[in-house]
Amino acid sequence: KQYRIAVIPGDGIGKEVMPEGLRVLEAAAKKHGVSVHFDHFDFSSYDYYEKHGQMMPDDWKEKIGKHDAIYFGAVGWPAKIPDHVSLWGSLIKFRREFDQYVNLRPVRLMPGVPSPLAGRKPGDIDFWVVRENTEGEYSSVGGRMFPDTDREFVTQQTVMTRIGVDRILKFAFELAQSRPKKHLTSATKSNGISITMPYWDERVEAMAKKFPGVKWDKYHIDILTANFVLHPDWFDVVVGSNLFGDILSDLGPACTGTIGIAPSGNINPEGDFPSVFEPVHGSAPDIAGQGIANPIGMIWSGAMMLEHLGEKEAGKSIVEAIERTLAERTLRTKDLGGNADTTACGKAVADMVD
Amino acid sequence: KQYRIAVIPGDGIGKEVMPEGLRVLEAAAKKHGVSVHFDHFDFSSYDYYEKHGQMMPDDWKEKIGKHDAIYFGAVGWPAKIPDHVSLWGSLIKFRREFDQYVNLRPVRLMPGVPSPLAGRKPGDIDFWVVRENTEGEYSSVGGRMFPDTDREFVTQQTVMTRIGVDRILKFAFELAQSRPKKHLTSATKSNGISITMPYWDERVEAMAKKFPGVKWDKYHIDILTANFVLHPDWFDVVVGSNLFGDILSDLGPACTGTIGIAPSGNINPEGDFPSVFEPVHGSAPDIAGQGIANPIGMIWSGAMMLEHLGEKEAGKSIVEAIERTLAERTLRTKDLGGNADTTACGKAVADMVD
Ligand SMILES: CC(C)[C@H](C(=O)O)[C@@H](O)C(=O)O
Ligand SMILES: CC(C)[C@H](C(=O)O)[C@@H](O)C(=O)O
Repeated sequence: KQYRIAVIPGDGIGKEVMPEGLRVLEAAAKKHGVSVHFDHFDFSSYDYYEKHGQMMPDDWKEKIGKHDAIYFGAVGWPAKIPDHVSLWGSLIKFRREFDQYVNLRPVRLMPGVPSPLAGRKPGDIDFWVVRENTEGEYSSVGGRMFPDTDREFVTQQTVMTRIGVDRILKFAFELAQSRPKKHLTSATKSNGISITMPYWDERVEAMAKKFPGVKWDKYHIDILTANFVLHPDWFDVVVGSNLFGDILSDLGPACTGTIGIAPSGNINPEGDFPSVFEPVHGSAPDIAGQGIANPIGMIWSGAMMLEHLGEKEAGKSIVEAIERTLAERTLRTKDLGGNADTTACGKAVADMVD
Repeated sequence: KQYRIAVIPGDGIGKEVMPEGLRVLEAAAKKHGVSVHFDHFDFSSYDYYEKHGQMMPDDWKEKIGKHDAIYFGAVGWPAKIPDHVSLWGSLIKFRREFDQYVNLRPVRLMPGVPSPLAGRKPGDIDFWVVRENTEGEYSSVGGRMFPDTDREFVTQQTVMTRIGVDRILKFAFELAQSRPKKHLTSATKSNGISITMPYWDERVEAMAKKFPGVKWDKYHIDILTANFVLHPDWFDVVVGSNLFGDILSDLGPACTGTIGIAPSGNINPEGDFPSVFEPVHGSAPDIAGQGIANPIGMIWSGAMMLEHLGEKEAGKSIVEAIERTLAERTLRTKDLGGNADTTACGKAVADMVD
């Protein structure tokens, strides 16, 4: 079978790291006899917006909705276009309209990347954050009353549905069950957020009954963030609501040294719609155009994409190539104390793939 | 003038650290010629609840509402009483009914306390978290529909009022203005939480105009937690909503080595009602009754209380005594690698006060 991948570089350094991601994907596909076809799209970018007055063409769903996956660079250019136009006009639209209800991110301390946490070595930190990606705190229900008076107030609803909560928990428990430690941690705040969070806890307890082989615990989000710093070795799979997952999946990569190399998947597990794989870093206007961006987040996202497509061996070969590349100072980019530029680093990973 | 302080030890280690807090307060009061009177109360504890079926007497407001401040140990005993009964029946009641709209916590790396962050030394981390303490995500508006069906959902509103947002921002900007760096950071998430958070940003911008001497910036909460770990030296005063402030004021102390020594104030700045000063740690059932709890959080909260009452010198003398005590391994408690018990550590601080 030939996989059809929609390629969307987007904005800023997205355009610079994408060629390296493709280079490594091609190398891994070749070595592992995987057939991949790439279709390139220029929408979901500021350039497209400037020309067309919108982030994407009206028929964007027809254009990319039948692909096996979407390989995505970065979107957003706050100085030129407000986030709620760029992000809600593309990334968050994908999540909602392609029902990508899982946001999946590894938190792994890699060789060659110094952790900001004292004394932590590669191997010490290795877990997944599973984030609900469609509902929760990112809702569109709410509004403002009595504008410009002392009575002014705004309100916004957090919404959790049985279907939405149960399916993300099921995904997280299944992931935990597939791992050696079989350990799941739920992020809550039921002692303060008194309606939605107790409901979340209730559904976690119900789901846990279906996975007797998985050990599970829960922490309130405040102390959980503290434990990411104090005890990152405690975690195996961490599941949280849209907001809590968002926080934990930036904090986690920070504890492993840099969010610059972290990958992510926005996944529709049933495969009714394509999933999106993108680096966690954004478009980084401050370093865009200099050719110094670290391509590892893009490349690692490609590995996640292959694994999602069922090509485990090819995906694994990329992750191992990343590890070998990062271990060499000269092959790392500047942000990690090396002197390679974006292309040199991408070529190094491609060469390491076997 | 004689200050009248309501003393509420509460549950678990609250009862063990309170005597040390009082010991040090008495020592500092004596040295600085401050007159303090303590009234002791046994409510807001599980013991009281067991006897009376409620956390506090009906006339709790008359009993403690006229004091100059409330010195509070810890409340909660999850194995015996659900958090929403113990916490919402006392701590959160105080915040709401005494309009303690500021939750204030220092984040400071102290001598003798190893930071989990590589290479950070005392002096490198020194900022305040200012948290809105009465509204926001901790609301009581919401509910559940279609229970036990596939259509089941829950919803809970985040509520921000003009009055509520403006007064916490004003407090935070004033605090920033009083500090050498004059720098304020606002925690937001307006790229994802699309109604309340843009409103927060809007009010920050409006308030900033009134404080032209204060430099300010804002970060989305996800990258802000990452920056607490990667760049704790960037911060001076950080202001956030009820939930964001809650998270940051546990994560901050974790970055300085332990939440075991962190103090906090729940403050009604106008003085219409008493403010509550309490350690950040809870009742800690796992170590309660052993006499090993670290009393520094309680003692430091006493220093914050004196400063709040206007007794700056006396408060400062306690903070300095804490620093000198922590610098000596033998005077520290076990959790900090020392061998002092709760009492020995408290006595050491009391002796150091000058
Ligand atoms: C116990 C809990 C309700 C409380 C809060 O979330 O406000 C605590 O975490 C705190 O920070 O004082
Ligand atoms: C850009 C922003 C809307 C987005 C989010 O909060 O979901 C980002 O932080 C992420 O994690 O993908």
